Order: sequence, then structure tokens, then C-alpha cells
Amino acid sequence: MIPLAQRCGVRGLTTETSPPRSRRTGRRAQSGPPPSKRQVNYHNLRNPFPTMDVVSADQVAAMHDTALKTLQDLGIKVLLPDAIEIYRSAGARVVGDMVYIGRDMVEAALTTAPKSILGKAGHAEKDLTFELGRMIFQPGAGAPHATDLVRGRRPGSAVDYEEYTKINQHFDVLQMLSPSVEPQDVATQVRHYFTAEKQLTLSDKFPFVFSRGTPQVMDCFEMIQQFRGASDADFAANPYCYTIINTNSPRTLDIPMARGLIDFAKHGQMSIVTPFTLMGAMAPITVAGAITLSHAEALAAITLTQLVRPGAPICYGTFTSNVDMKSGAPAFGTPAHFQASLAAGQLARFIGLPWRSAAGSASNTNDVQAANENQMGLWGCLMAGATVIIHSAGWLEGGLSVSYEKIITDVEVLNMVAELCAGTQAGADEIGYDSALSHVDPSGHFFACPQTMDRYNTEFYEPIVHDYANFGTWTDRGAKDATTRATEVWQEIVRREPQINIDGDRLNALKNYIAKRTQEGGAPPES
Amino acid sequence: MIPLAQRCGVRGLTTETSPPRSRRTGRRAQSGPPPSKRQVNYHNLRNPFPTMDVVSADQVAAMHDTALKTLQDLGIKVLLPDAIEIYRSAGARVVGDMVYIGRDMVEAALTTAPKSILGKAGHAEKDLTFELGRMIFQPGAGAPHATDLVRGRRPGSAVDYEEYTKINQHFDVLQMLSPSVEPQDVATQVRHYFTAEKQLTLSDKFPFVFSRGTPQVMDCFEMIQQFRGASDADFAANPYCYTIINTNSPRTLDIPMARGLIDFAKHGQMSIVTPFTLMGAMAPITVAGAITLSHAEALAAITLTQLVRPGAPICYGTFTSNVDMKSGAPAFGTPAHFQASLAAGQLARFIGLPWRSAAGSASNTNDVQAANENQMGLWGCLMAGATVIIHSAGWLEGGLSVSYEKIITDVEVLNMVAELCAGTQAGADEIGYDSALSHVDPSGHFFACPQTMDRYNTEFYEPIVHDYANFGTWTDRGAKDATTRATEVWQEIVRREPQINIDGDRLNALKNYIAKRTQEGGAPPES
Repeated sequence: MIPLAQRCGVRGLTTETSPPRSRRTGRRAQSGPPPSKRQVNYHNLRNPFPTMDVVSADQVAAMHDTALKTLQDLGIKVLLPDAIEIYRSAGARVVGDMVYIGRDMVEAALTTAPKSILGKAGHAEKDLTFELGRMIFQPGAGAPHATDLVRGRRPGSAVDYEEYTKINQHFDVLQMLSPSVEPQDVATQVRHYFTAEKQLTLSDKFPFVFSRGTPQVMDCFEMIQQFRGASDADFAANPYCYTIINTNSPRTLDIPMARGLIDFAKHGQMSIVTPFTLMGAMAPITVAGAITLSHAEALAAITLTQLVRPGAPICYGTFTSNVDMKSGAPAFGTPAHFQASLAAGQLARFIGLPWRSAAGSASNTNDVQAANENQMGLWGCLMAGATVIIHSAGWLEGGLSVSYEKIITDVEVLNMVAELCAGTQAGADEIGYDSALSHVDPSGHFFACPQTMDRYNTEFYEPIVHDYANFGTWTDRGAKDATTRATEVWQEIVRREPQINIDGDRLNALKNYIAKRTQEGGAPPES
Repeated sequence: MIPLAQRCGVRGLTTETSPPRSRRTGRRAQSGPPPSKRQVNYHNLRNPFPTMDVVSADQVAAMHDTALKTLQDLGIKVLLPDAIEIYRSAGARVVGDMVYIGRDMVEAALTTAPKSILGKAGHAEKDLTFELGRMIFQPGAGAPHATDLVRGRRPGSAVDYEEYTKINQHFDVLQMLSPSVEPQDVATQVRHYFTAEKQLTLSDKFPFVFSRGTPQVMDCFEMIQQFRGASDADFAANPYCYTIINTNSPRTLDIPMARGLIDFAKHGQMSIVTPFTLMGAMAPITVAGAITLSHAEALAAITLTQLVRPGAPICYGTFTSNVDMKSGAPAFGTPAHFQASLAAGQLARFIGLPWRSAAGSASNTNDVQAANENQMGLWGCLMAGATVIIHSAGWLEGGLSVSYEKIITDVEVLNMVAELCAGTQAGADEIGYDSALSHVDPSGHFFACPQTMDRYNTEFYEPIVHDYANFGTWTDRGAKDATTRATEVWQEIVRREPQINIDGDRLNALKNYIAKRTQEGGAPPES
């Protein structure tokens, strides 16, 4: 079976024994250049970049200390009575819905929160390790709208969700599934069946579950455990799915989020706790203030999970950018966003937990602004040592839409970043005094020297959408810009069915479960 | 006088005492938001990013050693007899036009080449220090064509050169002038008068002189020295201009380049030696091989300058990317380009000299590919610790054209990088427990807390072309992408005359000199 990944230059799963196909069309290559023989692995990446500090070690300690003081003295508003009771039972002071969490309780939670988490996917090759030093990319997530050059901007639909899942599955460098785009045409009480089924049948990657109340979450746990063939012990030992918990900054934990933290912790599934704050609006205007608030909120959530079940898999997170102070509009990929990622990375290393950050763009279309913002935000995350980088591809309008073309053009950047993980060698063979330097006369060329002949088919990254044609050729081909060319790339991907190994019995069981639960009325979301 | 820099969000020269103008229009702000009160300095930047190594220290030493062996045993072809004679007199073995440079001679040159060079501009504020750790940006340079959305792609002209110089002058983050675009409608024997006059009268930045033979170079030295009011001793003590020397890889130094190295060294002006190589074509296919070759060629050129005048200002340089092995076309902003910058940075630190690298794009239009390639290449340079980053804005088609819009959109990125140089603070005021965190209730906002009120007008970078409007507003305004908006930005810049302090007597002397030399027939370029 030819993995789809072989097309479009993504070679992560390509084996040398696969029949050759041409890189751009997917057709067998009777003519044209041979396919790349490169072996790359974009799935298990370790961050090769030096981490950058933006504040001093003393200041990191002061931010952490202020966060503890904030939780202890100012407290956090918790809207779920069950959660209040868990904090109270453990010794927190509670006044109404305000919970004052002592620093001892937080510090105890940080000793039991795991430093490394194994996320179980459809098969072992796609499993993910969440720990400091790893580098995992996710495409833009949680968007109400989808957009592409063919169909324009529209409310997210079931078709969009399905196509988005195929595109995510296609690219090895997107190592886990995401909340992606909201299928608004699927009724809310059965939407989680739809999204779980699509994730499980179109992808073998680590899936996502929204925390929209216990009934939906338990449905999803049941479907995933069954479909992935996990025993109860397996499912309790390692997470088979994850959720994202956003606090309501400042200092509020709402009902579905608190419920999600409890449910996921109780069942050994992973929460990524990410206060999403905008400096100058729902967070202080300074990087230090905003990150201190975000840290406090994340610590409150982490503490709740560890009170529910010590050792529960929990990922620290931060997503902080700034508003434009002239208009109040959110901005991304800014210097403040970059610095906030760096400061958050320092705090993550301070507490030693895996953590997620985010790139992203405020642009309304996949243009140069969108590219520059996304990449600027990405480099902030990379140099901050983020374990998971969300919204690293496809996110527009500060998350109000995902662009199919932008996923493609951003994946090009992510692939190149992944290529850098492999490093380069500079041994005698690579320096090549004998096989290259001494072989070529002054003003000659290296096209035919032994070193080149050995490596021409493996040395360089081959792009999925970047075009190196000269101006004349490019003009003759229609002068298509990268976004326009990206349309052809995603269209080719969504046209096909991903080649996932699916057990027929499990698929039947999943479909029967969904039919039965749908007939029972499903499970409406809770808020 | 209101510096132009105040418009379009570039505030480097803005003083608090300047009358307020609105950020986008340049008009006095009777209404609308007040201008930013931020004080930033984009001119004298130190690289704040951690440097990244891509090969081991042993491998760096092996690459340096192989470069020395290459020069000693394989030799370099030198087409200028005067240069051959200089090498020979110093003890190099010469056979025909092949010069075999002993490692002792290279090592001696590296002891006299200065580690820090002061480049003198129109006034002290614009002077530049070239040394490791500094960060200087240059826009795309040496292009035969110019392009913009209004006039399309055309051969570079006098108008383009003038406008390009104005745009360069406008942005503080472009700290020096560049070869920019070639004014092909100016006769070659007088073109250097035109370019010198435009650089001196439209800008107060460190100017560029092409090495197209001694007569042109000496004309330029004379014009610059006179116009900038430098005594002979001044001019000999520090460079008042610079040139870029490209070797003809592999291992060839042609006549105008060798002549330029000699002329600039003799007169104390700065050469930047940059072999421009493409892995797999004019250089080995490997990063290690290509950088070793580039290093050898740069060392040969550095050696020549130090034989001419020990201590002559010389800047090491590398610009190495890869070709697409399917088509032979040059590619930029690739993983190999990134790694080549890193390896070159390691060699620059090994020999301790200031050095230049380059970003750049192969795209044919200012699209997402152009943005992504340029920024990818830029981050390679930044993490390689490059002193001067050429082609950091505006370069398309691998240098065959410069785009006015791309200069604007790339400067947005450079400005944000420059903002990161200032770092951020996390003292008690910034963490803001009293002024922010404890001021705002759960689920409240920080718009009006004391910390925000103190800082709302100074905290965040304000973009020149990025747009944070929501989708509805953006659509109502015409749904203009960033490139389209950039047109309005450069048009506003080129409409005005830069406000440069010009001494009338010196201007007259310059014009008289040019008139006289033009009447004498000028000076044709030598090749």
C-alpha cells in the first residue's frame, strides 16, 4: 500500500520498496524525475533550537511566587460546585465561589504531575511523548469558520471537519489531531459522535475530545477505548485522547472546563491547560503580568487534576498575545507574543512540565501578513522550547477561521523546521575534499562530481508548494501565487481516502454505539 | 523638523517634543488616536538570540583546516596580474594564474584583520560598528529588475534607484545602503556618479560602492570623502563606504573583484567578501563542503586585503543556499540554506571576524512563499549570529528583482525582530501585583487598571502594514491583502523628500565634480 504521505513531498512513511510515483501528481512515474529516496521522520521530533530566556532566573522565581500569592490571597472563582468541594476537601479556603488555594497545595500538585506523558495513538509509530524537549505541531484549532479559495469563507460544516481531518492525517509533521473546525451543521447533542468517528476512521493520530460536559466526554472515552482496542487497564495507564482547557481569564474556571479537568484526570486522559489571554484586555498589559496571571490560572487547574488523581496526565500551557491598543483588536505574531512565549517557556522549565504554546495570525486572508505572523509566532514557540505548538498551520482571523490553503503553506514551513531536527554532518565525506573539492577545476561546477552523484536524490528537502521556476516559466504557467497553488495541493488530498488500518469489528461496534446513543437522544453539551 | 521616520509607525528618530502626527497618514492629529510615545532605537542593534551550532567544534576546525589545505594544495585562480604579484611577493607559489596560498600567510592575515570596524555615515548617530554580536539589516541588493503592483516588473531605472534609496532611508531598521536596484537607463560610464549622488543626497546612511574598476572606485571615494567632510586622515582611519566582493566559485577571483579588494584595502574602505554559492552547482552538494569552499575563497580574499594593508577593514561573508536538484533552479529559505548560515556563523566565530549572511526568496511575486522563504532565511541568519544580513527585505526571484511591496512587508518583520532586542522586564512594576493583578476581579478586564493606564501608549509595537481589523471591517475596507496595502505605504514614502541635513557648499562641490567628470567622459566599468 502506498501511503498518501508519499505524495506532495512528504516522505515520512515512504519506504524504498514502494513503487515510484511522481512527487506532484501521485501518478506512477513512467516519465519525469524519480521520487526522492530520502528517509525522513517528521513524527518524533526533538527541538534542535537553543532555548532563549527573556527574563532573569530571579524574575522567573518572582513570577512563580506572585502566581502562588495570587492564588492564595486573591483566589480564583470556580463555577462548578464539585470542583469547589475538591479544593475545599484538600484544605483550600472557600468563600462563596471564590477558592483560595494555598501554596503548599500547588507545590504538592507539582510534585505529582508527570514530567513525561505517553499519548497512545492508532499504532505505536504514531504515539507521542509529551515532555520538555519534544516538538509536536498541531494545525489551527477550534475555528467556527472554514475558508478556501474555491468555496470562500463559510460556517464550519461536517464536510469541512472531514476534509480538515484528512489534511491533518496527510502530513506527518502535524503529529496529533486538533479541535480543527466546528461542524456547525451537525446537531450539538450528536456532534461528538460525528467528530469522534471521523477522527478514528480518517486518522490514526492522537485524538481530541471537547470538554462539553460529562455525558459527552464519557461517550467519547467509550468510543475511543473500544475502537483503539484498549483494555480498562491500558486506558487508565496512558491517555488515548486529550482535551484543551481554557480558563476564563482573569481568574475564573467555568463549569465545563472544571468538569473536564475532573473527568479527564479521573480517567487518566490528558488535559492541556491553556489560559488564552490577551495582554491589555483580559490580562495585564505587560508580558510579565500576563504570564504571571496565566501561570496562576494554569497552576490552579493543574492542582485540581492532581487532587482528583495524583499523577494524572496534565500539560501546562500558555497562549498570550497582545491587543492592538488603538482598536482593542487581538494581534498575533507580535514581539509581545514572541516574548510571552519565551517567558512561559521559562516558567514551564521552572516547574518541569511539558507545555503547549501557540503560533497564529490575525490576518483575514492567507496573505503575506498571515505568513509572517504565523512564522514569527512559530519561532517564538520554537525558541521557547514548547512541547506542543498549536495553531502552527492554517489559523486566520485570530482563530475565527481556518484556511485550507494556509494549512498547506504553513506545513511547508513546519516541514522545513522538522528537517532541521536531523542536523547536518561535517565529517570527511561531507566536507568532501577527495570527492568534490579536489574534483572540480576553478570556475567549474559540481553537478557531476562523485559526492553530488551519491547524494543528488537525497540531499535536499523537496517542497510541497514552493515553486522555484524562473519568472518566464512561472508566468507561462499562469503566474499562480503560493496560495493559489496550495488549492491544488489540498484538493488532491481531500479527494482520496486516507489509508488507515481499520478493524472491521471495531468499526461496526463504533457505528452501532453511535446509532444506539443517537437513538437515545445523544448528549447535549453542558455549559 | 518632523522626521519621516515618524510616519508609518517607525519611531526610531521620533522625539517626545515633535508635534503629534497620526501614525498612518502623517497628518497632524487633530482627531484620531494620539501617536505612540514609545522610544525605540532600531539603528544600533545587538543580536539578542542565542547562537545555534549545527556542526561540532571539531568539525569546524576540520572545515577550516580543509579550507587552508585547499588554498595551499589546490590553489585559487586569480585573473588580475597585480593581485597575483601581491600574493607572489608575499611568498605564495604561482603557476600561471593559479595561486597557491600557504596556511601561514592566511593565518597571518587573520591576525591583522580587524575584529571591529567603525563605518562612518552622514552623522555619528548613523555610524555602524561591524563586529560579532551586532545585527545590521540591508534590503535586497543588486537586482537588475524592480517590481511593484502599480508599474509591474521592469528593468531597474534611475527612478527606481532613487525611490529605493528613499525607502531604504525611511526605515531605521535598514541601517545601511545597499547595491539596491540597477539603474539600467543611466549610461555605465556615469552610472556611479548617479548612484553616489543619490545615496549622499537622499540618505545619511553608510553608502555602497560597486567595484567596477579603479577609475570608478576612485571617483566614488573622492565624492564621498568630500561630501561627508572627511579629511584624508579621517578617510584612511575608518571606512566611509563599502563594497561587496563575490568570488567566482569555485576558486576563482576575477579582475574587478581582485581590483576592488586591493583598492578598498589600500584606501582603508571596507570590503565584504561573500562567495555566493549554490550547493550542488558551483559548490559541493553538502553544507559542509559548500561552506568549506566558501570559507577557502573568503580567506583568499581576506589574505589579499591584509597583504595590501595590514589592518584593512574586511568583513567575512557567506551566502550559500541550494539548488533544486530536479530543475537546477536556485532555492532560498530552505533547510540547507538555514544550516549553511549556521555553519558559516561557526566559522566566523572561529576566526573572530564580523560577517555577513543573507536571507532571500526564490518566489516570483510577493506572496506567502516569498514571506516564508525570507523569514526562514532570516531566522537562519539571526541564529547564526550574522553581523550584516543582506537581502533581508524586498528580494524576489533569487535576486533578479526587488519588490517595493516586499520591502514594506519584510520591514514589518525586521522591525519586530528589532523590537525583541529591547527585551522585556519582569520587575515588581511589570508583574504588577498591586497595579494590575489585585485590581481586577475575576472575569473582569485590565483596560482601566493603573498599570494599563501607565503603559497603553508605549507598550506594544505598532505595525506599518499588518492589519488587525476583523473580517467584516476588513471586507468593508476593500478586503485588501498585505501586499496591496504595502503599495500605499511605499507610495507615501517616495512622494516625499527625505529630510537630510545637507551642506550647500558640499552639495555644489559634488555637483560640480560630477559635471566635470561627466564632461571628461566619466569612467567606464572594467571587467
